[in-house]
Amino acid sequence: MRILAIGAHPDDIELGCGASLALFKKKGHEVHLLVLTKGEASGDPSAREKECLESAKILCADKVHFGNLKDTQITDGIKTILGIERVIHKINPEIIFAHSPKDCHQDHRNAGLASMSAARNSKKVLLYESPAAMRDFCPQLFVDVTSTFEVKLKALEAFGSQVSKIYFKGNNHPLERSPSVGLARIPYVSNASEGLARFRGFQAGVELAEGFEVGKFLLEVENGNNSK
Amino acid sequence: MRILAIGAHPDDIELGCGASLALFKKKGHEVHLLVLTKGEASGDPSAREKECLESAKILCADKVHFGNLKDTQITDGIKTILGIERVIHKINPEIIFAHSPKDCHQDHRNAGLASMSAARNSKKVLLYESPAAMRDFCPQLFVDVTSTFEVKLKALEAFGSQVSKIYFKGNNHPLERSPSVGLARIPYVSNASEGLARFRGFQAGVELAEGFEVGKFLLEVENGNNSK
Amino acid sequence: MRILAIGAHPDDIELGCGASLALFKKKGHEVHLLVLTKGEASGDPSAREKECLESAKILCADKVHFGNLKDTQITDGIKTILGIERVIHKINPEIIFAHSPKDCHQDHRNAGLASMSAARNSKKVLLYESPAAMRDFCPQLFVDVTSTFEVKLKALEAFGSQVSKIYFKGNNHPLERSPSVGLARIPYVSNASEGLARFRGFQAGVELAEGFEVGKFLLEVENGNNSK
Amino acid sequence: MRILAIGAHPDDIELGCGASLALFKKKGHEVHLLVLTKGEASGDPSAREKECLESAKILCADKVHFGNLKDTQITDGIKTILGIERVIHKINPEIIFAHSPKDCHQDHRNAGLASMSAARNSKKVLLYESPAAMRDFCPQLFVDVTSTFEVKLKALEAFGSQVSKIYFKGNNHPLERSPSVGLARIPYVSNASEGLARFRGFQAGVELAEGFEVGKFLLEVENGNNSK
Amino acid sequence: MRILAIGAHPDDIELGCGASLALFKKKGHEVHLLVLTKGEASGDPSAREKECLESAKILCADKVHFGNLKDTQITDGIKTILGIERVIHKINPEIIFAHSPKDCHQDHRNAGLASMSAARNSKKVLLYESPAAMRDFCPQLFVDVTSTFEVKLKALEAFGSQVSKIYFKGNNHPLERSPSVGLARIPYVSNASEGLARFRGFQAGVELAEGFEVGKFLLEVENGNNSK
Amino acid sequence: MRILAIGAHPDDIELGCGASLALFKKKGHEVHLLVLTKGEASGDPSAREKECLESAKILCADKVHFGNLKDTQITDGIKTILGIERVIHKINPEIIFAHSPKDCHQDHRNAGLASMSAARNSKKVLLYESPAAMRDFCPQLFVDVTSTFEVKLKALEAFGSQVSKIYFKGNNHPLERSPSVGLARIPYVSNASEGLARFRGFQAGVELAEGFEVGKFLLEVENGNNSK
Repeated sequence: MRILAIGAHPDDIELGCGASLALFKKKGHEVHLLVLTKGEASGDPSAREKECLESAKILCADKVHFGNLKDTQITDGIKTILGIERVIHKINPEIIFAHSPKDCHQDHRNAGLASMSAARNSKKVLLYESPAAMRDFCPQLFVDVTSTFEVKLKALEAFGSQVSKIYFKGNNHPLERSPSVGLARIPYVSNASEGLARFRGFQAGVELAEGFEVGKFLLEVENGNNSK
Repeated sequence: MRILAIGAHPDDIELGCGASLALFKKKGHEVHLLVLTKGEASGDPSAREKECLESAKILCADKVHFGNLKDTQITDGIKTILGIERVIHKINPEIIFAHSPKDCHQDHRNAGLASMSAARNSKKVLLYESPAAMRDFCPQLFVDVTSTFEVKLKALEAFGSQVSKIYFKGNNHPLERSPSVGLARIPYVSNASEGLARFRGFQAGVELAEGFEVGKFLLEVENGNNSK
Repeated sequence: MRILAIGAHPDDIELGCGASLALFKKKGHEVHLLVLTKGEASGDPSAREKECLESAKILCADKVHFGNLKDTQITDGIKTILGIERVIHKINPEIIFAHSPKDCHQDHRNAGLASMSAARNSKKVLLYESPAAMRDFCPQLFVDVTSTFEVKLKALEAFGSQVSKIYFKGNNHPLERSPSVGLARIPYVSNASEGLARFRGFQAGVELAEGFEVGKFLLEVENGNNSK
Repeated sequence: MRILAIGAHPDDIELGCGASLALFKKKGHEVHLLVLTKGEASGDPSAREKECLESAKILCADKVHFGNLKDTQITDGIKTILGIERVIHKINPEIIFAHSPKDCHQDHRNAGLASMSAARNSKKVLLYESPAAMRDFCPQLFVDVTSTFEVKLKALEAFGSQVSKIYFKGNNHPLERSPSVGLARIPYVSNASEGLARFRGFQAGVELAEGFEVGKFLLEVENGNNSK
Repeated sequence: MRILAIGAHPDDIELGCGASLALFKKKGHEVHLLVLTKGEASGDPSAREKECLESAKILCADKVHFGNLKDTQITDGIKTILGIERVIHKINPEIIFAHSPKDCHQDHRNAGLASMSAARNSKKVLLYESPAAMRDFCPQLFVDVTSTFEVKLKALEAFGSQVSKIYFKGNNHPLERSPSVGLARIPYVSNASEGLARFRGFQAGVELAEGFEVGKFLLEVENGNNSK
Repeated sequence: MRILAIGAHPDDIELGCGASLALFKKKGHEVHLLVLTKGEASGDPSAREKECLESAKILCADKVHFGNLKDTQITDGIKTILGIERVIHKINPEIIFAHSPKDCHQDHRNAGLASMSAARNSKKVLLYESPAAMRDFCPQLFVDVTSTFEVKLKALEAFGSQVSKIYFKGNNHPLERSPSVGLARIPYVSNASEGLARFRGFQAGVELAEGFEVGKFLLEVENGNNSK
């Protein structure tokens, strides 16, 4: 399968569906990223582009496409839609991951709306949860990412320029993990990402999960054991 | 795969997801029906049971389970939940089809709520649309039933005792189809069922579809071409 | 009564409420169309304008007003609102039909929002369902269009330049109607329009209907039989 | 036209749509009330029945039907539905007013759900706002009751046994009206009823209004001036 | 405490939360107003600015900040967000009052969205109800403004240039208050404002209230009687 | 302040708002628990009662009230409402914590609805999130429980009879914490509870939080520094 993930800024895709993408790669699928801006409003664009490519490498993504839109100025209009359509037509993805429009960040909102317009003829559109998701984000579909959550955390490590953002902030809680284990090597990785993965995992009945709103899902029925 | 469809009365399952079930059978999967009541409020229960079994045969369902609840008196409480849990534990289905609780019929509403409680540890729960669905029913997942919609219509034919109900009513519209084709052989089959399938098909980007709200969907990622 | 229907592009009004408008004309009311753009993004604007006028003639609409906005660039801002207000003040319509803002097309969304702003002092605003309506569009008010649905189909025939769009696509289903009857003369007319009309008809308890969300409805109480 | 208003307890109908009913009577229509219980949980049932009949007289209602259900024990089940259906079949009303199910009182909720089930084949169902309405009650349809709001207040005066309830409580605010005018003669009538009527009136663009959620509304198109 | 109220135009803040602000001042808190435009689309901007300052004086507000955006052209984008962030950083308010995005006026909608973005690290954001609020505005939090509602009315009096607007319109109803009392001195003050305050008061269980949607509320737990 | 927390079964209150209650106690307030059933459907009622009292001791709750309803058979009707009203009248609490009705467990749903009915005259009702909360639970109000989350975990330890339930299940994830620290002493405590607290903490801008839907909140304005 070909998978396309669309994000407004470098790091949006990783935060929203990085572990799911890592799982798709692990299972032998083709993964494309479309990053609409270079995030120049929160750092040097060429540094952020470099981080973005490094992170994509960690996820083993096949290709990163850049949308060349302006950070903080993404609209839900024709320019954004056409930019996304172009990549969709080139790749013809079976599954599209996009921002949920239920998001407090205007770029995320507009990127989500434009993605749904551009993907109107696609079979599966799954809307991911950013750290700025509105609280009425309501996932219906889950991916069990227990086996690839560590890859997501490593990919997030690549975004060194964003360390000061709250969702990358380290865990200073008295219950903090001992330095000898796992996450302690990557102290700036967010509590929230892991907390959310555990909670979505609980909702899904698995250890760690990413949750998605279903934009559209055309369920294919594969042949079963008794197929003729 | 094992599929379980749960309905409040004989004919609910066929109306809500009959064509999807026929597709699952066609593709070689195992299909179980759980009918919670014998519909004694709208006809002789043994006649309705017989119709139900006949219809299940047309869908090629593997087995019909009866819930022995009282028609018009289904609650969302423990008795209904336990009855459904018992069948879930016996079959261990990969996908459960159940009433959407967004339904004007109290039996449907309660059967839907109880199904979601009983299926809380299941991986996929899809909520179907009955003719009494509230208008805010909002499908997110679709099954392309172009190849099995005729089976659904034939299954509905089995419910002779319900012919007078509006959603089984024939089409007397001047645009009516010629007697030489398809549906004309089964004149009492509803306009609405076919109209809805066309409309849901349009929303899904296919000819004819059944639409479902996603109660819960744990997406499995299968091995792809490049899997190792 | 004076009726005003507002659409973003030529063909939006016909698809959303064409049969209702035909019914209002048939019953002796005055019907105005306000088309905000000439749809230049999907074809030659003068060809589309011509189609639009031809279609309006088939509906027997009294007048077509053009909004002179740019296709794909309609905003929900003051320019759109003022353009609509100008026509509302000229016509002073009793009922306004407008796009529902629950629509995946940004022009439709914005036209809907702007229409509601412009119509804030109007008594009845009904929001119609476009082929791009979001799936949570939830109609509460219905018009029985059994007697005028054929006029809608004929009006849609006028939009020859849009034939390739999915909602104008012909019906190649094996259950297709015989060539000797009704719709077969207009093979490119969408399955979806008819399917939707049947389904909305079922919800309304009539043969064929168009469904509307109620933006605002001030119910007038007419004199009854025993009025003094 | 024949109008049927359905309420759980004596005084529910008056509070929810009393002024609209008074308007329908004033315009020469037939108005029936169906009161499902005698409100025995908040007073002597025969006293409450008497108050109810007195209030109906003030509204000039044609007939009061009693449902003989038990106060505080109304369900959304078959017994309630059948009781309502019986009255609907007898009267065959053009418009039904019923409780909105978005209500904090379980009797109101269940009466609303049962009314919608019983009225599934009716053309117009309008859901009214009780003092216990949930705050997400969202009216779409309004009736201008400026000319009959005083009748509603007088009808409410009939419910002397309920004076201690908050929504019948008098206005002790320093901005209170002078004793020489209007409402001052009926000091126990609620601030809230009048405040709500003003606010709904503002939303509707009139002086005083009652607001309704639209359960279902089949819009009839009457002949216009140019009808043939 | 420091309070910041943000409004799109002069008079929005007063209409939405003027009585609450007056209460905060009365209780000894610091109140800042941020008015994003000078309302030049509905009058002379310098006249409107003057009215705005006069009204702020009546509320005893500590300072009025102007946002220098263009009336009718407020976006939800970065310019609006940055303008609001600047004031938030200067004042560091404990509570922010902002437009609810559920509003029919595009400036209000966008100001509300931008306020929530700008206030993403604030502890308490309360969204107020403008006269153009959509009808699905659903308040969860209330402030009892019985003791300061008169101050709100006086503050509204300052907006003489807006007298013709419907929500400032006088009360010509036959139930009108006698000229000897309260509101009669300020006849153009809206029925609606007072009606709404009574109705929200009823919902809150007090005489007169302003209602708010909770954008975010971090509840602080103060020391109680038995604190150690 | 007096706080009342209402739960359907032993352990519901601890899971939903245990850390908030511990905080209220720590700050010197009075905390009452009302447990509607003894949870006899999932274990020996006297054992569960004992666990419940032990847990309450850990939270330092002032008193546990039992509602004597039947497990799995709680309704939203008068019996439940009266039982809750009785305790409310006795305690007269300033804040009530209750189940959100957006819950998949019928007892939780009904307890939530009945609590809101019973608390209709209370000033603050906060609705908590159970492990069975529907996914559209949408918290607006948060309590920072960083300082008392450990007490919640200890209180949950008291429910030894429920260890096998998924939300009490231990953490076997490879990222598991070292045995030398914090949570490792209580290995059966759920991943989910901690994950959720981190995620809600992130949404609230603090380390660990519990989130609540606002049933009703009458904001009191205390005297400030400049109060006279």
